[in-house]
Amino acid sequence: MDDDRFKGRFLGVLGGMGPMAGAAFMTRLIALTPGECDQQHVPVILWSDPRVPDRPAGHAGQGVDPLPWMQNGVNHLVQAGAQAIVIPCNTAHLWYEPLAAESGVPILHIVQAVIDDLRRQGVDRGHVGVMGTATTLKSGLYQRALEAQGYECITPAGVRLEQCCADSIHLVKTNCLDQAYAPAAEVVTELRRRGADAVVLGCTELPLAIPHARRAGLGIAMTDSIDALALAALEWYRHSEE
Amino acid sequence: MDDDRFKGRFLGVLGGMGPMAGAAFMTRLIALTPGECDQQHVPVILWSDPRVPDRPAGHAGQGVDPLPWMQNGVNHLVQAGAQAIVIPCNTAHLWYEPLAAESGVPILHIVQAVIDDLRRQGVDRGHVGVMGTATTLKSGLYQRALEAQGYECITPAGVRLEQCCADSIHLVKTNCLDQAYAPAAEVVTELRRRGADAVVLGCTELPLAIPHARRAGLGIAMTDSIDALALAALEWYRHSEE
Repeated sequence: MDDDRFKGRFLGVLGGMGPMAGAAFMTRLIALTPGECDQQHVPVILWSDPRVPDRPAGHAGQGVDPLPWMQNGVNHLVQAGAQAIVIPCNTAHLWYEPLAAESGVPILHIVQAVIDDLRRQGVDRGHVGVMGTATTLKSGLYQRALEAQGYECITPAGVRLEQCCADSIHLVKTNCLDQAYAPAAEVVTELRRRGADAVVLGCTELPLAIPHARRAGLGIAMTDSIDALALAALEWYRHSEE
Repeated sequence: MDDDRFKGRFLGVLGGMGPMAGAAFMTRLIALTPGECDQQHVPVILWSDPRVPDRPAGHAGQGVDPLPWMQNGVNHLVQAGAQAIVIPCNTAHLWYEPLAAESGVPILHIVQAVIDDLRRQGVDRGHVGVMGTATTLKSGLYQRALEAQGYECITPAGVRLEQCCADSIHLVKTNCLDQAYAPAAEVVTELRRRGADAVVLGCTELPLAIPHARRAGLGIAMTDSIDALALAALEWYRHSEE
């Protein structure tokens, strides 16, 4: 079990929130890895426990606290050999500080990954539209970080747009990916009309609602929190030492 | 860590062979799970170590033995709490017996999952075309099990069809999914012409080469070793006791 041959820089993925976002992270991590054979890919352990209590309800104090569940997952990943961790769930990052304080290994922050991806796309200032769960948006998770780094934020304020975000996320969670596109695209279009130079898909269900092939048609730079996190993980893997 | 709240029937997935097949297994497991919310999905631990030495070379005695790497993955999965294991790689099943003998938990066999899926589709006898790596086909892994259960097998014999299978699998492994379709479809068409009543996509890269949306156009029943294994895992989850 402790044979040196098997050691390596394993990435730990705390998935399950929701399960499809964790699987999509795996798919994109692999698709974004340059390589000609299996052996060039990043070793990964995915802990996908979809029983983690609902994050928005927990954050509102109206449900079971999800933090111990997430800590349990992080502990299992570290014990199994993960040397860095990613969490492909934006709302879960509301518990980033207590998770990172106890993990013992770095947790790559999804919001910083998104901001790095904006810069990678040449968007280094201006107005950024942020989409996500109502909980993520109300918490200011993205807005604080974006404003601290020189951006101005536009959120999908208003009952209709908030409902569109929520509907799209719910449709992805119920495996209705085709139907999830229209409400998400409506929000992107409205954020663009309000002056956004780029849009952040700040919930890991949203990149599944607006698949890559349909993005160019929306006519605005878009950063996808799944791809951004996968690119951050690949950077970590390239630059870390065993 | 041993808090009872967190216990549950975890499925262990020995992935990484190749990495995209493991991710595709996760995606299909989730897509095939009926449910309205995250919490109804199967808890999964995926061990994706793409560094496992090449299976065809290892089986031919021309490369490093992959078995200790697979055993290492199985050990990690069991130690992390997996109560049953699936291996979304057909060729890896050439080492099924030594893996199953030491795992301590059931390993759901991909070939039996495929045969169960053929029956689920109403194909309970007749000629079955089998596609896969040259190593899987030459080993008779599928042919023995299919013939023992009353089917007759047709393999893509001949230099051209063997090359088409190999090309398609290689294109998937190098993330060229669009180009992987044509050679795989050519083999399906030829197997049908030779009298197959159904075709087994007996390499976990092949379902990615022939995506679901294009299957009806090929005019023959098709069973996909990723979906079949995901359905077997869902059966295990539904019927097992904690």
